[in-house]
Amino acid sequence: MKRLAILGSTGSIGQSTLSIVEQFPERFQVAALAAGRNLDEAYAQAVRWRPRVVSVGSEELAGRLAPMLSKAGVGGIDIVYGTSGTVACSTHPEVDFVVSAIVGVAGLEATHAAILAGKPVGLANKECMVAAGEILTRAARERSVPILPIDSEHNAVHQCLRVGAHAEVKTIWLTASGGPFRQLPLEKFTAITPEQALKHPTWVMGRRITIDSATMLNKGLEVIEACRLFDLTPDQVHVMVHPQSTVHSLVEFVDGSIVAQISVTDMRLPILYALAYPERPASALTFDLAALRHLEFEQPDFERFPCLRLAFEAAYKGGAHCIALNASDEVAVEAFLAGRIPFMGIPGTIDKVLASTPEAHPATIAEVLAADREARQRARELIAG
Amino acid sequence: MKRLAILGSTGSIGQSTLSIVEQFPERFQVAALAAGRNLDEAYAQAVRWRPRVVSVGSEELAGRLAPMLSKAGVGGIDIVYGTSGTVACSTHPEVDFVVSAIVGVAGLEATHAAILAGKPVGLANKECMVAAGEILTRAARERSVPILPIDSEHNAVHQCLRVGAHAEVKTIWLTASGGPFRQLPLEKFTAITPEQALKHPTWVMGRRITIDSATMLNKGLEVIEACRLFDLTPDQVHVMVHPQSTVHSLVEFVDGSIVAQISVTDMRLPILYALAYPERPASALTFDLAALRHLEFEQPDFERFPCLRLAFEAAYKGGAHCIALNASDEVAVEAFLAGRIPFMGIPGTIDKVLASTPEAHPATIAEVLAADREARQRARELIAG
Repeated sequence: MKRLAILGSTGSIGQSTLSIVEQFPERFQVAALAAGRNLDEAYAQAVRWRPRVVSVGSEELAGRLAPMLSKAGVGGIDIVYGTSGTVACSTHPEVDFVVSAIVGVAGLEATHAAILAGKPVGLANKECMVAAGEILTRAARERSVPILPIDSEHNAVHQCLRVGAHAEVKTIWLTASGGPFRQLPLEKFTAITPEQALKHPTWVMGRRITIDSATMLNKGLEVIEACRLFDLTPDQVHVMVHPQSTVHSLVEFVDGSIVAQISVTDMRLPILYALAYPERPASALTFDLAALRHLEFEQPDFERFPCLRLAFEAAYKGGAHCIALNASDEVAVEAFLAGRIPFMGIPGTIDKVLASTPEAHPATIAEVLAADREARQRARELIAG
Repeated sequence: MKRLAILGSTGSIGQSTLSIVEQFPERFQVAALAAGRNLDEAYAQAVRWRPRVVSVGSEELAGRLAPMLSKAGVGGIDIVYGTSGTVACSTHPEVDFVVSAIVGVAGLEATHAAILAGKPVGLANKECMVAAGEILTRAARERSVPILPIDSEHNAVHQCLRVGAHAEVKTIWLTASGGPFRQLPLEKFTAITPEQALKHPTWVMGRRITIDSATMLNKGLEVIEACRLFDLTPDQVHVMVHPQSTVHSLVEFVDGSIVAQISVTDMRLPILYALAYPERPASALTFDLAALRHLEFEQPDFERFPCLRLAFEAAYKGGAHCIALNASDEVAVEAFLAGRIPFMGIPGTIDKVLASTPEAHPATIAEVLAADREARQRARELIAG
């Protein structure tokens, strides 16, 4: 029985994780839930799952949750809040496995604390790996703590890597749907509206990741994440546009063999894989191979998707540049969604923030968070003009 | 250093194996070569590779080879012949690994003897597995002798299986190019000539296997081979038509993940994999993923390719039916190439031979060979009318 801490339990990945727990009650138990501002859902989850500890976003929300649970006759649950609350969830002694699914750098401290406490981590939060990948993977290696990727692409790579040794890996190929603007002519990119950018062809996701898919910055973050997770150089990581999102990624070995992973586009599959690893429980998440007809592939266009180029530049520089890439993108995406900058203002902002970022390699989470705040500030100032 | 016995050294797989040995002199050495009737090539190989033992097809050929080698000043090579000669090669004490690449059941005894002697086998001879798979795999399991498939499809499956446990395999999907008649209307099948059938769209191979690809009997033999090699039921083995021959096979796991192997269509890659397993040496056999554009898949048509249906029937019955399938096909293909029966006479002959085959499970190689001879005899009689 694996006892889980779910960081970001009310979000999309958190809810999918709980649906997996529901399907496999003999394998998984919920020991800790860390939510944010969605109090009603946090309450409902606490009542349904009876964890040992629940964390919410603020002291005020924690103060409101306590009487709600008492009124429902639910006792024995510690109620905590904020960053220290999330850390209490991820390091709880009765937790065997931590699902890190808080969006953005907010989940960083709790994820780091989980690794320091020796807990295996299922990582759905790519910003953690982009901003602090060097720190997290070093800590994980020193303590032999597995980090299992929950992203569909990295999960696919993790599966394919089992076919050979690390030294035998030549390159990995992350597939990308190409987003809604894969075939849009370059001159029309300036007029892209938030409504158009929010329509993703194959995956239903949160707002920032949907925009990041449209700019392909998301794939760029995944390139950096892949370098960190799998100990590869940026030269070893390629992006392949694959509109059907059927092949989730490919690994090419030095002998010439390439191994690819295929599955339904449903996050429950990588979640189940990470939770049950190294076992594979039978699931109903079946891809109908008999109905497979054709798969298309093409090379990404770095001119129409400058975010991808910027991400590779950051990947080569590492450290502060990766932090700045992620931070400035988040600020720029918010500004784009608020109608304050055009679509191509997103790479424009990132480009300028990266250009003014000094080369540095933060060695602690506090330094990472400081560099993150500083980059956000520069991005805001640039956008405010 | 692995010291190899190459059974079928002058054939296509044998020569490709020698080209791999040439590329990796620090890894592989030639200890034994078993050739057939191509004396000049056997002589040239003996001179080039200086094995401990060379086998040729007959006493007469052995008698001619000895003075040729003496004249060239090449000594210290034992010259043997016939089935006992091939067995002497496959069981030679200085052999660490046996490449079984003699076409047809002729290589059966030597392959069985290699397994009994505890030698790992790289198997390029699918007829061995079809006719005597139950005997060979039992012997290999009892002695923990690995059998590494050199067929591109089974080699792909072997690679993909490393991604999970045997009990986690749901189905495997062997890809098939579909051969030259994939899109030919059914009514035109009766007029197919040997010349048309000998033109394979993606692989250059021997005559029988090329015709077997055109009837898809080859894929049927591979279904049976896969059942034996990977301990699967025929229900677990599917065929998928994939005209590009880029994806060599796929394995579907119970959790819903599917893993596929992609590579160039060059037999040297599966040979290198089998020889070096579990390592993957760097090779120049590179597939250009950046040039990948589209992959097509379709379900096989059992009406136009009745050989595939017959093979599944034989797979379910096992034993004597698998032997009869292979034996009657070989006889029928010869008759077709000689212009004595039409293309659809191949499945017609097999169907009748299978129908008159009693259910039986030969327990020794001698029984297998007797059943094989008997089925060939029935096929010849049927064709003679």
